[in-house]
Amino acid sequence: MYGRYTQDLGTFAKDEAARLRLQEGDTPRPRRPSELLEYSQGRCAPCRVCALQCQRFLISKVGEDWVFLILLGLVMALVSWAMDFAIATCLQAQKWMYGGLDTNVLLQYMAWVTYPTVLITFSAGFTQILAPQAVGSGIPEMKTILRGVVLKEYLTLKTFVAKVIGLTCALGSGMPLGKEGPFVHIASMCAALLSRFLSLFGGFYENEARNIEMLAAACAVGVGCCFAAPIGGVLFSIEVTSTFFAVRNYWRGFFAATFSAFIFRVLAVWNKDEETITALFKTRFRLDFPFDLQELPAFAVIGIASGFGGALFVYLNRKIVQFMRRQKTINRFLMKKRLLFPALVTLIISTLTFPPGFGQFMAGQLTQKDTLVTLFDNQTWAKQGINDEFEYLGILEAWRHPRSNVFVTLVVFILMKFWMSALATTIPVPCGAFMPVFVIGAAFGRLVGESMAAWFPDGIHTDSNIYRIVPGGYAVVGAAALSGAVTHTVSTAVIVFELTGQISHILPVMIAVILANAVAQSLQPSLYDSIIRIKKLPYLPELGWGHHEKYNVRVEDIMVRDIRYVTLNCKYRDLQQVLHSTKMKNLPLVESAESMILLGSIERAQVGALLSSQLSPQRRLMVLRQKVLSEDGHRLSDSSIRFQISTETSSGTPARPALRKPLKPALKRVPSSPPDSPPAGSTDHTGIALKSLFCANAAEPTEMGGPLLALVGRPYPLPCPMAPPQILEWEEQQLDQVVDFSSAKIDPAPFQLVEHTSLHKTHTIFSLLGLDHAFVTSIGRLVGMVSLKELRKAIEGSLTGKGVKVRPPLASFRDSTASATEADTTALRQLWDRHQHHHMPREAGPGGEDDDDTPK
Amino acid sequence: MYGRYTQDLGTFAKDEAARLRLQEGDTPRPRRPSELLEYSQGRCAPCRVCALQCQRFLISKVGEDWVFLILLGLVMALVSWAMDFAIATCLQAQKWMYGGLDTNVLLQYMAWVTYPTVLITFSAGFTQILAPQAVGSGIPEMKTILRGVVLKEYLTLKTFVAKVIGLTCALGSGMPLGKEGPFVHIASMCAALLSRFLSLFGGFYENEARNIEMLAAACAVGVGCCFAAPIGGVLFSIEVTSTFFAVRNYWRGFFAATFSAFIFRVLAVWNKDEETITALFKTRFRLDFPFDLQELPAFAVIGIASGFGGALFVYLNRKIVQFMRRQKTINRFLMKKRLLFPALVTLIISTLTFPPGFGQFMAGQLTQKDTLVTLFDNQTWAKQGINDEFEYLGILEAWRHPRSNVFVTLVVFILMKFWMSALATTIPVPCGAFMPVFVIGAAFGRLVGESMAAWFPDGIHTDSNIYRIVPGGYAVVGAAALSGAVTHTVSTAVIVFELTGQISHILPVMIAVILANAVAQSLQPSLYDSIIRIKKLPYLPELGWGHHEKYNVRVEDIMVRDIRYVTLNCKYRDLQQVLHSTKMKNLPLVESAESMILLGSIERAQVGALLSSQLSPQRRLMVLRQKVLSEDGHRLSDSSIRFQISTETSSGTPARPALRKPLKPALKRVPSSPPDSPPAGSTDHTGIALKSLFCANAAEPTEMGGPLLALVGRPYPLPCPMAPPQILEWEEQQLDQVVDFSSAKIDPAPFQLVEHTSLHKTHTIFSLLGLDHAFVTSIGRLVGMVSLKELRKAIEGSLTGKGVKVRPPLASFRDSTASATEADTTALRQLWDRHQHHHMPREAGPGGEDDDDTPK
Repeated sequence: MYGRYTQDLGTFAKDEAARLRLQEGDTPRPRRPSELLEYSQGRCAPCRVCALQCQRFLISKVGEDWVFLILLGLVMALVSWAMDFAIATCLQAQKWMYGGLDTNVLLQYMAWVTYPTVLITFSAGFTQILAPQAVGSGIPEMKTILRGVVLKEYLTLKTFVAKVIGLTCALGSGMPLGKEGPFVHIASMCAALLSRFLSLFGGFYENEARNIEMLAAACAVGVGCCFAAPIGGVLFSIEVTSTFFAVRNYWRGFFAATFSAFIFRVLAVWNKDEETITALFKTRFRLDFPFDLQELPAFAVIGIASGFGGALFVYLNRKIVQFMRRQKTINRFLMKKRLLFPALVTLIISTLTFPPGFGQFMAGQLTQKDTLVTLFDNQTWAKQGINDEFEYLGILEAWRHPRSNVFVTLVVFILMKFWMSALATTIPVPCGAFMPVFVIGAAFGRLVGESMAAWFPDGIHTDSNIYRIVPGGYAVVGAAALSGAVTHTVSTAVIVFELTGQISHILPVMIAVILANAVAQSLQPSLYDSIIRIKKLPYLPELGWGHHEKYNVRVEDIMVRDIRYVTLNCKYRDLQQVLHSTKMKNLPLVESAESMILLGSIERAQVGALLSSQLSPQRRLMVLRQKVLSEDGHRLSDSSIRFQISTETSSGTPARPALRKPLKPALKRVPSSPPDSPPAGSTDHTGIALKSLFCANAAEPTEMGGPLLALVGRPYPLPCPMAPPQILEWEEQQLDQVVDFSSAKIDPAPFQLVEHTSLHKTHTIFSLLGLDHAFVTSIGRLVGMVSLKELRKAIEGSLTGKGVKVRPPLASFRDSTASATEADTTALRQLWDRHQHHHMPREAGPGGEDDDDTPK
Repeated sequence: MYGRYTQDLGTFAKDEAARLRLQEGDTPRPRRPSELLEYSQGRCAPCRVCALQCQRFLISKVGEDWVFLILLGLVMALVSWAMDFAIATCLQAQKWMYGGLDTNVLLQYMAWVTYPTVLITFSAGFTQILAPQAVGSGIPEMKTILRGVVLKEYLTLKTFVAKVIGLTCALGSGMPLGKEGPFVHIASMCAALLSRFLSLFGGFYENEARNIEMLAAACAVGVGCCFAAPIGGVLFSIEVTSTFFAVRNYWRGFFAATFSAFIFRVLAVWNKDEETITALFKTRFRLDFPFDLQELPAFAVIGIASGFGGALFVYLNRKIVQFMRRQKTINRFLMKKRLLFPALVTLIISTLTFPPGFGQFMAGQLTQKDTLVTLFDNQTWAKQGINDEFEYLGILEAWRHPRSNVFVTLVVFILMKFWMSALATTIPVPCGAFMPVFVIGAAFGRLVGESMAAWFPDGIHTDSNIYRIVPGGYAVVGAAALSGAVTHTVSTAVIVFELTGQISHILPVMIAVILANAVAQSLQPSLYDSIIRIKKLPYLPELGWGHHEKYNVRVEDIMVRDIRYVTLNCKYRDLQQVLHSTKMKNLPLVESAESMILLGSIERAQVGALLSSQLSPQRRLMVLRQKVLSEDGHRLSDSSIRFQISTETSSGTPARPALRKPLKPALKRVPSSPPDSPPAGSTDHTGIALKSLFCANAAEPTEMGGPLLALVGRPYPLPCPMAPPQILEWEEQQLDQVVDFSSAKIDPAPFQLVEHTSLHKTHTIFSLLGLDHAFVTSIGRLVGMVSLKELRKAIEGSLTGKGVKVRPPLASFRDSTASATEADTTALRQLWDRHQHHHMPREAGPGGEDDDDTPK
């Protein structure tokens, strides 16, 4: 089906192109050098023609999705592998230093503590200086971006470099941090940069919808090449970043993630680390009898406990952030010395894990990877207490302590790592929380498994065969359950299978993950949602687990009824009032105040632009010129009539060519219309009489290259032929004119809801279409409006007040629209104030001037 | 987050309820018996109160999603297990008969052939009689249903019974058929029935959005409990049935599918079939070195070949259906003897698989399950030719033939099974094609694997260790690739892992599946899409793999510009004309023909209802009564004025109380408004003078209980006080009145697009919201319309004409709206015709009467 359709569309496109070419052929066009080549003589000509054709073919192929996805997968696999290599080297260096200094414990301690502190401090400082956006996981921001919000500076090369280097240093320090969240962000940046790079070859990459699709695939690649888990990566990225997932994008994620995981593992084989492609944390559990049916309750217990643990982790993480921000003394101190907090945290954590010190009770010398390998180990450790046959070999040694048993070590490990991870993930470096949580879960599972093994030394099964309990299986279950609980995902189960290379524990894992999710979701938001709330990113919370109240709340219960609107026949003064009285980003345009028939929606910025262009100095000058002209020509005495005429002229085409252009799309700054030099046609008519008048101001428009709006507030410094009172009078007259909407960009089909639409459906539509607001209409008549704010309030209930009240930490991330609108509002507020109090021009004037010097 | 929000909403709802109760409390209400119980004396009272509270608690819990999902999982697991048991018994019986008759080959043949023929014929006949909707896979229909289309009779108990019994018989016959597609359908029916059953306890199950969500989960359960593959089931069902998937429904599928798979496998353990829960087709490949990196090209070859094979299968399957339908002789013959075709096909297939006959060259004696078990076998068969050490044990014996080698057997098996499966899946019994294709794929993979093993007897790897090639791994890869190619899904990879219980071949499987998908998707639609096209189900085709043309086609290129509309101030005559001139299901309502401002959309049925109520005999009687009244009272001579007055009265509220009610939702028949007996108030005023007039007609309105529209065409037989010419005159006058829309159900916010919306975005929006049509507006003005038809045309290009031209086989499945609209159109056409030719009332009258006798 696909093939044939597309073929047909392709044929159609080709036919169309041929037709156009024929039409074009009528008018002779200059041949391009490449075409001329075919006719040129010489030996090299055929070669060159061939090369050119190849080049053209390649360029046409660059536009294909799969080329992009392969490139993305390749780049990300290389990045992932190189980072892993660098991190391993860093960790090796620490171990080497620690091992080399074993003569002096103090020196050992110094080395053990200084190394990570320096790395983390460097990472924090580097990130802070280069791109503060690179801090943290990145998944919350990607979730917001995929919802359609534009986060500034978030997918740039600078951020990419900062994140890669910062993450390498942070993980190289051996702190309990993860690479999975940041990898989602890195892959997205990689996709954005790649598409910008490839767009040099063709324009296919300029489509926004396509870019969003590619970003979704990139998220999958990020997780996929981090764990060498293509399927789990795709599913995890879908669960974590999407609300509604387009199944037609599915293959993109799978394709890119598989390719990326493949290259990532092949690199390991080529580097002789592995003999062939296998799982990252391969386990060797027995296949014939993986677990007993009677062990399932224990797995369920792991699931439920992990649910509580996951919720506690999210809560703890948030409380730490909130505490740090609320304590003003600490806050002020930390703000001043930005690098002190990371250094302090690293110092505490590395001190506690110092192997000869407290670290001996919590396997402090193991790296994250080694910890996981040992936890997934096939043997049973607890048996050691019963019959001493079992030897702790190699890295397993770390779990043994001569004066305690393995249970104590595990409990201490879990408790210490728990708060350490929650604390470490608040450090302002690029870091994720998935891997630390995964390790804690594995340790918890191991603890339960070892307990079970100690309780039933010969297994539960009482039939002929003896099947001993495998604590490693419990560790796998625990890891999946806790990470699932923290992230509110089910696909951690799949990640676990792909990581361990064994799927035999599928049912225990699924049961535990689902129970953990059920518990955690009813207690706390997911870690990523929690961060979204802390950072106050513009995101719509999910509806909870099937609660029926949502089906009964309707739009009419939550909508704002008292909204400001713009009528088709309103005056500029009305626009001004509307702008002053509301902060809505989009204003409804209705036919008239009586009929209230909704015609469309107009952006606030557009209204501002209309207003400011009406009152702009350029226009004033134009009017003045017209006035002089008409005085020259007809000597009309009535100035009001003159103004009327001049307005009509100026609203015609030649007067404002800049504003006639299609305006820039949404979420951009108010287009600062290029200063229109007086049109050539009219300049001819001005004659010599005007030249003396204009020569003083000729350079003025060029100087005023800044935002047009800023100019409105600055009439006085202008060397203007009108005196301020005259200007005011003129502006008053202008404001009484009827608005000409022809130059404004109106959204002709804003999304409409009906009063009876349920909250559930509204939420679905908002999520599906990434809406920001919707108008509520009743048979064409505007009756209200619902925006994300109202919807969020309705979903969160009365919680909004109690919610996370921290200062948005990512001030620079803020939506570009918001800032534009704010600047806008300020300028317009001044305008309004000036006109409200135009009997006191002295006071308002300087205020407007002050603000103008900082137009940002 | 979820927990707290929902809790708050819950609290809010409780507060609201408390408030309402307080308000209610002001007016004393009768206490229910249960409340009175608390005050009644006696020993049993506390018990009964407790029991009642428990009951109330249980009923409140029934509304929870998880209760529903557990019930669904449980029921489906039981169904799946019981069916498997029955199928196994059937197959055992055939084997037993075949084995018992080994003295006489003819008798053996008779038994071998008759048994499946009888079963298939019974299955076909039973399904045909009980519910023809149960025929086939069910996935295409579920895809359509999940898009929001209502397929009649598709989720009923009758269909459920027919499908379960029909499927058991069909699979018990040993034909190459699968149970996975039908299981998706069975699970959906189960969910629909369960929700209808549970709605007896509470009203939560009446919400349509919720039911759709539950159906999506049910699809996952269907696949999950069929293969004991919860993750694969969820993913497969998403890929196969959804266009846009709501991630918030994800857990439902996982939860139910896991529970279902768990119970399904636990039943096997309890039945002592298995020792513990393991995979369905457990493999025992080595873990340390699953495959060599240098084997990857072979896996890629399997993938590409499977892609071509899958496309060929879909093509073959469609061609067989088309051939059967096009050949009129065959068709007429088969239509008459509906059971002959299934019997014939079964006869051919079972003859060819007869083990002592041709079946010996294609392992004919093996059941589907045994075939898979042998194909996934750990040993290498081809070695047998080289060194004779290997013994074919047990069922493996079937693959050996004394006079040929295993390669020949495999090739014959693949070729024969290929067309057999394609043919068998066209039999009108409940059956799927997944499993047969899966088996063919496994055989193909095995063939490649055995070839590789014969080529490299000691493995490719030339290092110290010798790792032999595992042909079983190739079989797994082949199975995933071919089934992925036929269904256009990637998740067959996950299903394969869950089926075999091993994930070690993840990279080969993923590579092969993706390549197979890439090839198959560029050649043919998926099997399910092919069936959708054959059955002409109302479904929107997918956009192809990232073709950029779609981003450049715009709505203005494909929209219908010349559309009929209804204006706010139009007359009934205009309505009539609009209905006559267009077949659109939804008519736009615009303010006026000049402004063209879109106010809403009105259903065709509603327009018809408006028109017929205006011309209804009831209203005429009312008018007559009014006339008599006014003649009695005022003795006005001018009848036209009288009519005018009476109309005004009748358009008031008390005259048409039935139509004032909120009309029934879309996709329903035109509401046959209950015959309104003259309102009590007005009857009082009629007085004695009217009684003689009305006594003859008093019973008339009660008789006219049928569809209102039908009555319009039957004015003559009515014992009416008006003569036909008078009626015509009256109706003409009525038609000239301005339409009163107050009683019509108008969709106040139909979906609007802009001319510049791209085809890609339009497709997305249509898929996301399940739209049927959208109006194209330009600043509030209606300029065109896009419906599914235009969109489909635009996507399919010029293919529509060449498309599958078969008669829709599921005539009874047709959308209920369509039929309602057709009936509607017929009635209105008559009305129109009569008014166009009202100078010939004699001719039109009987025609109208004829049609009325068959109002359906």
